[in-house]
Amino acid sequence: MSDERLDKFFHPSSVAIIGASHTSGKLGYIVLQNFIRENFEGGVYPVNPDTSPIMGKKVYSSVKDLPGSVDLAVIVVPSVSVPAVVKECSDKKIPSIVVISGGFSEIGTKGIILEDKLKKAVKESKGRTRIVGPNCVGVLVPRNRVDTVFLSMERMKRPKEGNIAFISQSGAVGSTVLDWLAKEGIGISKFISYGNGVDVNESDLLEYLAEDEETKVIAVYIEGLKSEGKIFVDILKKVCRKKPVVVLKAGKSQKGSKAAASHTGSLAGSSRIYSAAFKQAGVIEAKNWEELFDFVKAFGMQPVPKSNRLAIITDGGGFGVLATDEAERQEIQLPEPSDQLKKSLQSKMPPHVILHNPMDVTGDADVGRYRYALEGILGSRDFDGAIVISLMQVPTLDAKISDVISEMKKFEKPILACAVGSAFTENVVKAMEARGIPVFPTPERAVNAFSALYKRQKFQNGR
Amino acid sequence: MSDERLDKFFHPSSVAIIGASHTSGKLGYIVLQNFIRENFEGGVYPVNPDTSPIMGKKVYSSVKDLPGSVDLAVIVVPSVSVPAVVKECSDKKIPSIVVISGGFSEIGTKGIILEDKLKKAVKESKGRTRIVGPNCVGVLVPRNRVDTVFLSMERMKRPKEGNIAFISQSGAVGSTVLDWLAKEGIGISKFISYGNGVDVNESDLLEYLAEDEETKVIAVYIEGLKSEGKIFVDILKKVCRKKPVVVLKAGKSQKGSKAAASHTGSLAGSSRIYSAAFKQAGVIEAKNWEELFDFVKAFGMQPVPKSNRLAIITDGGGFGVLATDEAERQEIQLPEPSDQLKKSLQSKMPPHVILHNPMDVTGDADVGRYRYALEGILGSRDFDGAIVISLMQVPTLDAKISDVISEMKKFEKPILACAVGSAFTENVVKAMEARGIPVFPTPERAVNAFSALYKRQKFQNGR
Repeated sequence: MSDERLDKFFHPSSVAIIGASHTSGKLGYIVLQNFIRENFEGGVYPVNPDTSPIMGKKVYSSVKDLPGSVDLAVIVVPSVSVPAVVKECSDKKIPSIVVISGGFSEIGTKGIILEDKLKKAVKESKGRTRIVGPNCVGVLVPRNRVDTVFLSMERMKRPKEGNIAFISQSGAVGSTVLDWLAKEGIGISKFISYGNGVDVNESDLLEYLAEDEETKVIAVYIEGLKSEGKIFVDILKKVCRKKPVVVLKAGKSQKGSKAAASHTGSLAGSSRIYSAAFKQAGVIEAKNWEELFDFVKAFGMQPVPKSNRLAIITDGGGFGVLATDEAERQEIQLPEPSDQLKKSLQSKMPPHVILHNPMDVTGDADVGRYRYALEGILGSRDFDGAIVISLMQVPTLDAKISDVISEMKKFEKPILACAVGSAFTENVVKAMEARGIPVFPTPERAVNAFSALYKRQKFQNGR
Repeated sequence: MSDERLDKFFHPSSVAIIGASHTSGKLGYIVLQNFIRENFEGGVYPVNPDTSPIMGKKVYSSVKDLPGSVDLAVIVVPSVSVPAVVKECSDKKIPSIVVISGGFSEIGTKGIILEDKLKKAVKESKGRTRIVGPNCVGVLVPRNRVDTVFLSMERMKRPKEGNIAFISQSGAVGSTVLDWLAKEGIGISKFISYGNGVDVNESDLLEYLAEDEETKVIAVYIEGLKSEGKIFVDILKKVCRKKPVVVLKAGKSQKGSKAAASHTGSLAGSSRIYSAAFKQAGVIEAKNWEELFDFVKAFGMQPVPKSNRLAIITDGGGFGVLATDEAERQEIQLPEPSDQLKKSLQSKMPPHVILHNPMDVTGDADVGRYRYALEGILGSRDFDGAIVISLMQVPTLDAKISDVISEMKKFEKPILACAVGSAFTENVVKAMEARGIPVFPTPERAVNAFSALYKRQKFQNGR
């Protein structure tokens, strides 16, 4: 069962920033600024003993003075004051708190004592109040303009609204991903960095996101677990039945596990145990950072294939060959087009086009030739999906290729594109991704992403 | 011995474009335009039966009418006329010819007959004339403004001058790489796409580039060989003794080999035989497109390490952990800093910095903290190189990080950086690469590139 009390983190009707600052650039200023700049629709209440207005907003001297119903409190006060402030929030019946402040277990003995106090405050709230953090970046929900990320918009752009949820234990990794997603124009439903995880942890969030209608795929970056291993795996099993979960587990090597321990204080655990548990649960495991990114992009934009019979269409023979090499490594099938299909395409295309799989429409292809090829291939029962390589450096292909590929969504089969280059190509790539066609900079990465989609299908079919 | 006759392809004192066109956008127009726009310093002679001027240039009616000494002829006439034109050029004692025109063995029987005629013309020249092509993109030498690439500058930007030579059998792959290199601001010494390779082939070019003082590293993309396998391997052996050669061999899978055969008419050969031969010769083999790119970037900008004792410095713990995982996969050593070094760094840094390897200077690090860490680590005999991860999303780190990392080149140990993000980060990445620090978008790719540098060192040390 998803915990409805987590709702208020993502859809608060009002928010209090406790420790809101008068000084531009400070954490407590940036967080307040986020809600003001992004036109958060509910009440925004800065709290600071100095009640002179900030950015024109009335400032409250304490939590007690806040108006009746506050859904979300963001705490940015020094760590020593956090347990007391959490208690005040809990007394005020604020259901959700994000504790941004660091200075807890991650700094050693002194911090561990403080974190214990914080845990005690959480416990005393008897579940009335849920906490994300401490030592975290918090929550970002573009749709509802919730943004507790204390990094300036100049340095870290915010991704637009989309259907990818992203859970990151690490704030640094998390904010780097957000900035990258924003640059690539890929949208998210919800981002949560939960830091030391004294209350809300990866398992709670997974359970919640499984039920979240705005989320199509869940990406998870973890080092060590904040929840119990068995519970985590059981929840993963349940969640994977509902939607794809892509996990990047850092600290899988011996040295890496040690590094993770000194970095987050959490035991990272054995690589093999994790991989086995992930596989059993139906998780799509990302080997590295790039795969995490590529896989969620594919799942966010495309359906899974019925089987693994892939077609490769290219205007550059070499890229077709590289895609083929990767397909064979990944045990993806590349069926030959049927004689009937070949005949039909022959009648529409010049003789130098190579009507095999990969299908090389060659360097003088225009969008029309791609349309014939895609209609024929995706309309055929012999193919479950396509990789479309469109090298835009050649003169005959124009930006309308993004419309043509996008039309092919009618076949409800996964289509992944590959293109790479400077400004001209970049504009085409943006147009494709805006139409829901994921584009990869190398043929191998496109095939690898198709393989991830296929793994999901295999899992769903119960093998 | 390097063939000096190839010199004229790269340093011609004059160039004739045979089939220069009056129509903007046509191949024979673009090639002429390249030489004019880029202010090629020698004579530029368009040849066309219609002698009305093109872009203000005097046009010659035939090869016979050309002035005395032409070093390079670029042929863009229809394939049927090519053998005769080649003969004319040879009679005129033009030492180098690039045949751009397609329509030879790649189109089947009719083309094979034409290609045989072309081979005959080459043979009859008795080595007076060397030919690159046909069916190729030709030659690009930014330093000397030689540019036979018939793709518009709008679609395919040209890379700047640099020390990477790039040989590509495929024109499409080649031009995509050029556009990508240009976008990334990475320079090349020479680019050659040799297409059907009736005369000059991969072996000739490797031999030539081995002696080329402007080339530090050679990147090779091949599908099938145009030279004999044994000769190719012998030459690779010789060349690898002089400088690093990174090879991406496409068509290594069964299906891929078949695809390569239908695409280039060349037998791609068995994966294992190639990999074994490459290893024996000392080639750095790239598994895929991305590695080819990453490796030549690393070799172009950085020295090889004395051994594989790597330090990882990061402001984001998570990225440090991922780099560590990859280092262990690659069997790269991550020694612990000595007690003496730790003590020295402790005195200069706040207590929350994690002085292990990876060294986590944490999210509030400024450039000064990076400088202390890098001076200490690279100045120590315990480390042979460093991966510097600088996530720029945090507020304390500024663009001066590129100066600080660049200062560290004084230690003559390889330094590879990792940073990724939107505009702010992109500017920092550009500044770093302009200072000769290669930057990779993921920690794993940075470590993998270090591993390639180390492989070269192992080969040089004879193990």
